[in-house]
Amino acid sequence: MIIHTTRLKERVGGEASLRGWLVSKQARGQVAFLTLRDGEGTAQLVCERAALGDEAFEALKALPLEAPILATGLVRLPEGRDRPELALRELEAGPSAPDWPIGRKEHGPDFLMERRHLWIRAPRQAAILRIRSSLEFACVEFLHREGFHRFDAPLVTPTACEGTTELFELDYFGKAAYLSQSAQLYAEAGIAALERVYSLGPCFRAEKSVTRRHLTEFWGVEPEMAHVDAVGNMAFQERFIRAVLRKVAEEREGDLAFLGRDPESLVFGPEPFPVLLYDEVLERLSRQGREVPWGEDLSVEDEEALAAGFATPFFVYKYPVKCRAFYIEPDPADPRLALSSDCLAPGLGEIITGGQRASDHDFLKSRIVEHGLSLDDFAWYLDLRRYGSVTHSGFGMGIERMLRFVCGLRHIREAIPFARTPQRIAP
Amino acid sequence: MIIHTTRLKERVGGEASLRGWLVSKQARGQVAFLTLRDGEGTAQLVCERAALGDEAFEALKALPLEAPILATGLVRLPEGRDRPELALRELEAGPSAPDWPIGRKEHGPDFLMERRHLWIRAPRQAAILRIRSSLEFACVEFLHREGFHRFDAPLVTPTACEGTTELFELDYFGKAAYLSQSAQLYAEAGIAALERVYSLGPCFRAEKSVTRRHLTEFWGVEPEMAHVDAVGNMAFQERFIRAVLRKVAEEREGDLAFLGRDPESLVFGPEPFPVLLYDEVLERLSRQGREVPWGEDLSVEDEEALAAGFATPFFVYKYPVKCRAFYIEPDPADPRLALSSDCLAPGLGEIITGGQRASDHDFLKSRIVEHGLSLDDFAWYLDLRRYGSVTHSGFGMGIERMLRFVCGLRHIREAIPFARTPQRIAP
Repeated sequence: MIIHTTRLKERVGGEASLRGWLVSKQARGQVAFLTLRDGEGTAQLVCERAALGDEAFEALKALPLEAPILATGLVRLPEGRDRPELALRELEAGPSAPDWPIGRKEHGPDFLMERRHLWIRAPRQAAILRIRSSLEFACVEFLHREGFHRFDAPLVTPTACEGTTELFELDYFGKAAYLSQSAQLYAEAGIAALERVYSLGPCFRAEKSVTRRHLTEFWGVEPEMAHVDAVGNMAFQERFIRAVLRKVAEEREGDLAFLGRDPESLVFGPEPFPVLLYDEVLERLSRQGREVPWGEDLSVEDEEALAAGFATPFFVYKYPVKCRAFYIEPDPADPRLALSSDCLAPGLGEIITGGQRASDHDFLKSRIVEHGLSLDDFAWYLDLRRYGSVTHSGFGMGIERMLRFVCGLRHIREAIPFARTPQRIAP
Repeated sequence: MIIHTTRLKERVGGEASLRGWLVSKQARGQVAFLTLRDGEGTAQLVCERAALGDEAFEALKALPLEAPILATGLVRLPEGRDRPELALRELEAGPSAPDWPIGRKEHGPDFLMERRHLWIRAPRQAAILRIRSSLEFACVEFLHREGFHRFDAPLVTPTACEGTTELFELDYFGKAAYLSQSAQLYAEAGIAALERVYSLGPCFRAEKSVTRRHLTEFWGVEPEMAHVDAVGNMAFQERFIRAVLRKVAEEREGDLAFLGRDPESLVFGPEPFPVLLYDEVLERLSRQGREVPWGEDLSVEDEEALAAGFATPFFVYKYPVKCRAFYIEPDPADPRLALSSDCLAPGLGEIITGGQRASDHDFLKSRIVEHGLSLDDFAWYLDLRRYGSVTHSGFGMGIERMLRFVCGLRHIREAIPFARTPQRIAP
């Protein structure tokens, strides 16, 4: 019976077959050690000349890396080790070219990204992508359980969500169209029909700057809720993050450990996530020697300096209106402030931006005008405030940013199967 | 306590509050009937002048449609009816403009699509969108449970998946790029890393023809599996469809009934889905008076004529090679035929296309050349056959097409929040 490498531990003392690809091999005299990779992980095959016979032993030593293999043998757990191995009895192999290009030696990122279609097979990359899959599933499972309806926003749009810069332009049967940066505005239409909606889809930003945390095409999960204010929004985000990370920690324990991440570090204690006001944040940063003029957004370095002091995610709340988007609801107690928050991951920085949306028609209209946006373009969005407008809030979480935190990735390019950056759209 | 309209039946004889929007109203002398819509459905509020007092009664009669309302009262089930109603005791209402544009009278599709951001609130549209959400969740839940890893393929790509026609071109920092038609080729890279992968994302086709079953932007779920051949692929599709539709039938029973669809019609008996060979299909169609020359693809009308004779989904298998894409595996017994299948929904037509992919490097290379495609563009795709190529298969299901079947929709534009067609990208 063919089983996955992760189930080998259930078969210690018995026979099993594994099916996958040859990741690495090493011969030491009369014994060869092969590593097999399947869709769930890797396992070591111990191949003894005495057990296999000369011909089979020589044949397996000659196997090219990445050859498809079907290995059968006895499952045993060597003393003092926690991963079982397979003492090989029989091996079937398929063909593979002998010049597999990705070696053990250190390759530069360009070399690897050029071969991303092959690099994803590296056990570290495969582990990251499995964790990504788990993270995305945990998001939709939680939201579905909470009564949210999935609401796929269009990607091809006639106008910009938050202005016309940073947009990719498209030839739509001879007319200009733009790739959407965010599902939010459409999600706001969705809540009056479905109350609680979410999207999980690609978002596009034509930002030319090259950083460790930006992609031109990234995936975002964007929930939007009727009848929820900014404080309720943060409380919901906290429940969301806790549930999602707990599920990922359970489901991908082995992969996290393989990456050197303690799964327990994704499960947080009972103390609520701290909520810091923007003004408090400026004071904290000032004590760290970082002066941010009031009204400015935090830089990546500010966020990192701030996030270094926390062991759980935390919120920065009530940003100045001028560093948030046009649709935010101002604080009735101080209209210079927005009922808007970021959630920062410990040691990293922003993973979620969210807030309460302006619900009053005339106020929103004045904001559109102030921001120099077209009233015609946003007529449909203003309609949402003409008819049955209610208090509502929502947020957007970047899947790749969250994955950087979960996996402890230095660079965001490893957080998505095929990263798109200003320099790269291939393969 | 505020509950959803769908939970009213649990509270018969007690008090409850409902929160939502005013869908319709009708006054008959001393009684007014309001319909409230929330995120899960609708409920009737019975408002008696005697119980509410003159002032409150007149005020609620004057409410504009779509006003946000919070209604409290006694839940009762009138004799001979199966939907409980709320005998109103108290009503709070928010503002809404008096000129709600969508009336009961028949509007044309252009009028409605122009106001799609508001039309989605219509109870029928909201029901369809909830079923869509359930369908998408059922797909990912089933695949996750079956050990598939989500693998998000890039949308911005340097080349065409199946040729350069029908592609939207994009300005990518001054270079041409294209919106992806399918995740499949990338998913094929994914299987050598993760064995079983799937994507759920937007797909783009720049097809100018206007039909009841095409969108320029649609959502597809695309699973891809290592170690599975064409026959195993069909068997898996059958399990997938059965599980997904059963879940949708359970989860959205009320919405399906509201649309006039019997939820039981989505739950199929134990007989396996029929598998018809292409050649048999031509004979069948010929008996129906429809002559299809051998080697031609089936037209929409052919599919509809064929699908009218089935009560469950069924497969058409072994299409001629010339009507399938370049990457298909030919039938070793007859290389004119492809190990490729469509799955058709009863009474409708194609909902899934799938097949076994060519796994031999040299054969695939010859197919790329024959199709006039660039070997440079597909060098990375050929690499997948150079290194560790295995038998593999996959399929793509259009969410909107499946939803047309599930909901019994005549036109595909109702199957997605904001349909994109050659004429329409707004709102």
